[in-house]
Amino acid sequence: MSKYEDIVNLALRRSLFYPASEIYNDAPAGFYDFGPYGAAIRRKIIDVWRREFVQKESMLEIYGAQTMPESVFNSSGHLKDFNDVITTCKKCNSIHRADQLIAEATKEHVAEGMLPEAYTDEIKKHRLKCPKCKGELSDVKKMNMMIQAVVGIGEKKSVYMRPEACQTIFTNFSRMAKTMRMKLPKGIAQVGRAFRNEISPRQTLLRQVEFSQMESEVFFDPARINEVENFDDVKSYKVMILKDDGKKVEAIKASDLVSKKIVSGNLVAYYLARTQQLFESLGIPAKAMRFREVSNDDKPFYSKETWDFEVETSVGWLELIANNYRTDYDIKGHMKGSKQDLRYVDDQGNKLVPHVWETSIGLDRTFYTVLEHSFKKEKRGKEERTVLSLPPKIAPLLVSVFPLLSNKPELVEHAKEIYNDLKSCYESAFDAAGSIGKRYARMDEIGCPWCITVDFDSAKNKDVTLRDRDSGEQKRVKIAELRQLIFEMYAGIKTFKKL
Amino acid sequence: MSKYEDIVNLALRRSLFYPASEIYNDAPAGFYDFGPYGAAIRRKIIDVWRREFVQKESMLEIYGAQTMPESVFNSSGHLKDFNDVITTCKKCNSIHRADQLIAEATKEHVAEGMLPEAYTDEIKKHRLKCPKCKGELSDVKKMNMMIQAVVGIGEKKSVYMRPEACQTIFTNFSRMAKTMRMKLPKGIAQVGRAFRNEISPRQTLLRQVEFSQMESEVFFDPARINEVENFDDVKSYKVMILKDDGKKVEAIKASDLVSKKIVSGNLVAYYLARTQQLFESLGIPAKAMRFREVSNDDKPFYSKETWDFEVETSVGWLELIANNYRTDYDIKGHMKGSKQDLRYVDDQGNKLVPHVWETSIGLDRTFYTVLEHSFKKEKRGKEERTVLSLPPKIAPLLVSVFPLLSNKPELVEHAKEIYNDLKSCYESAFDAAGSIGKRYARMDEIGCPWCITVDFDSAKNKDVTLRDRDSGEQKRVKIAELRQLIFEMYAGIKTFKKL
Repeated sequence: MSKYEDIVNLALRRSLFYPASEIYNDAPAGFYDFGPYGAAIRRKIIDVWRREFVQKESMLEIYGAQTMPESVFNSSGHLKDFNDVITTCKKCNSIHRADQLIAEATKEHVAEGMLPEAYTDEIKKHRLKCPKCKGELSDVKKMNMMIQAVVGIGEKKSVYMRPEACQTIFTNFSRMAKTMRMKLPKGIAQVGRAFRNEISPRQTLLRQVEFSQMESEVFFDPARINEVENFDDVKSYKVMILKDDGKKVEAIKASDLVSKKIVSGNLVAYYLARTQQLFESLGIPAKAMRFREVSNDDKPFYSKETWDFEVETSVGWLELIANNYRTDYDIKGHMKGSKQDLRYVDDQGNKLVPHVWETSIGLDRTFYTVLEHSFKKEKRGKEERTVLSLPPKIAPLLVSVFPLLSNKPELVEHAKEIYNDLKSCYESAFDAAGSIGKRYARMDEIGCPWCITVDFDSAKNKDVTLRDRDSGEQKRVKIAELRQLIFEMYAGIKTFKKL
Repeated sequence: MSKYEDIVNLALRRSLFYPASEIYNDAPAGFYDFGPYGAAIRRKIIDVWRREFVQKESMLEIYGAQTMPESVFNSSGHLKDFNDVITTCKKCNSIHRADQLIAEATKEHVAEGMLPEAYTDEIKKHRLKCPKCKGELSDVKKMNMMIQAVVGIGEKKSVYMRPEACQTIFTNFSRMAKTMRMKLPKGIAQVGRAFRNEISPRQTLLRQVEFSQMESEVFFDPARINEVENFDDVKSYKVMILKDDGKKVEAIKASDLVSKKIVSGNLVAYYLARTQQLFESLGIPAKAMRFREVSNDDKPFYSKETWDFEVETSVGWLELIANNYRTDYDIKGHMKGSKQDLRYVDDQGNKLVPHVWETSIGLDRTFYTVLEHSFKKEKRGKEERTVLSLPPKIAPLLVSVFPLLSNKPELVEHAKEIYNDLKSCYESAFDAAGSIGKRYARMDEIGCPWCITVDFDSAKNKDVTLRDRDSGEQKRVKIAELRQLIFEMYAGIKTFKKL
């Protein structure tokens, strides 16, 4: 069984995530729900992003409507250019993504964004047939990926579910500049839902129709791209880089990325470094990461410089983040479309269409990848145990409290007392069902870092057994010190070993 | 200017909330974005709900897709019964909500959920005309409020944006029961988006097409409705009740609600009390609240007992929460529709379709109401100041740091040092623009509870001026004690007066 399958099985077994509306046969593919532990991990990943990225960089975080009018996507280019290329089987009528079909059949890289005719030529050249029925495939055509809805009663309006959360940021930019006294460079961030009519949603969270993004757009004056206040903080930090013409990943100092002209300037190097640091803090080792330079053929239509942030997983290098130098494309487009002056005005009254550096993080893929990198199967004696070694700050529960025996009321009562006390500070669980070993196992596989067992000595000695998820070790600690110890381990001030 | 207008003006001026896609003429009505301060307040209201309600009651919090298949809403009854009643002007073609039109014209209460013919009769009886052009009005007909979208490429599927977040909870119930080892009574909660095709979206956040709900559904055995573990905690707490046949609000002890048969049982009384407590903790006084018993004529089609939680505002008593005793309506409906056995199985193997108590909180209306109840205009000397006296736990910023003069580099640098230190613990701002009075005023009107001013004595004496938002008073405090003082005031351990 692959690690991907391990994760999906764990997710279904413990309800981390599972198909939405799964009790119904007509539930469409590409929609997922998160159960209590999954929703908690997801929320905590957002919290880390907010604290370590958005707030540390003093970005403005907004929260906008997901539904937007047609004009927004005329200006952004999505209605014209946000397409997949498809081919239909003339025999069984099944529809396939042409670029995927070609890539899978030839095992070669297929560029994105080519004209439909070019994909048709490839299909003919390799004599590709329908993978389902071996039927003949049609010429390739474009298919727009936007999801439309209609609102209003008298005057009906065609609206769209946004395909990327960042469009809210662009339509908000000018208001932020005016009312929030913005000084460039300044980021605007948003976490929210986006929707894409995927031709073949697949691999659970990895390709969904409805999904979540944590996006930030840093607005800056292109003439001052090298003026980054805290650049010194990252200049010696090594960023994992795979150049377009390179064969292997190199760890390159942020300052060298600029001096060797690998990136457009300090601002780009700074945010690549900060992004990598964010993912290290989520428990992913730098050696499993890379920023892959995206060639001109594959870049999105609005980008001058693109680095896909990828993490190594059991399903290959998985793209978690699109890092795009969007230039002035978006603000210019919305100025033209809205016929409004959206320019930034500086202290001297100079007007400027700012450039934009984008860090568009796929939250669901990040969630999946964090699970995979924390997932371990370990033999311990005769038993195999499954452990999610999540960093405590993204664990769904911090502590779980057990009475040693569930049929002894005095133990249950004492354990509940301790649980109620801890619950007021930390996300905690109480569990009295099954053997202690089973209870530990249940907590290990959802990533709860610490378990507390209350036994007959606890009342007498005022202590309990504290067990560590990652090592499986146990120590006897005083009940009066529990709150403080958990806080210190959570905050990284102490480790379990040194308690 | 009404308080409502004051709030909307403040919201636009400081970007708390504002129309979505406002730079475009074709932006539909009924969609709003939240700027940085607004988004922060909104998020913190959610945090309070999660901590004080969801987690205190050990509910399971899920996060699900907003898009759901047709079958879900066949089972829930929404496709058939989730309608508004409309009448069209035969002259100008404008469309009106019949019940609102009648209520506004007659100043009388108009029951919801009557047959269209009954509304037509009312229009004829009162000889009502189109409010826009005085034209003749058509017979009343039903209009479904669901918003539809189409996903999929080959096999296109009609899906709907959920009109209430709770349907995700019902479709998840059986999975939660099985995989989360649920013991009744148990709540499942969710905060998320919902969508309704409102005929006349209006009053900004108060009637939107896309909006947010904080919903919880407590599943219980109706034979054990009185078995509520922590009922004693609330039994003497007085709940503000307006009975269907009553003229004025009475403060009634939770235990009396049960003994006097005003509610169906302890579980209902318990959650009414806990809901009121939640809103007190958001800074709204109990005397401005009421649970209004909803008559049989006005109740939703699925409810056995309904209490609308309303708060007094400048636009009248505003419904923030629907509290519904939904019985087994939802689970039964989804069992029938999905042909699956969704019953709960207890420890003895008995199968049961649980009953449901719903607390469905409108997040946007709560947000608006919290703003209105914290909003004050005060004369102070010659100046009028605007203050948002938000409880610190929902304030968008906790502390703002100012150098006394912005043209003195040593002051600016010293203030930045203090800011950077506080920023690592608390949501903080740095402001060096304009007079100190203006900077205080800017912080007052977005609800920042404490401001710190760094002056020439600060470096020498190692102290700063700490100013309190609500009293406007100032004290000199040591820099080394700032972190701790702010924490203590935030946590309610100390007040500014007693520093």
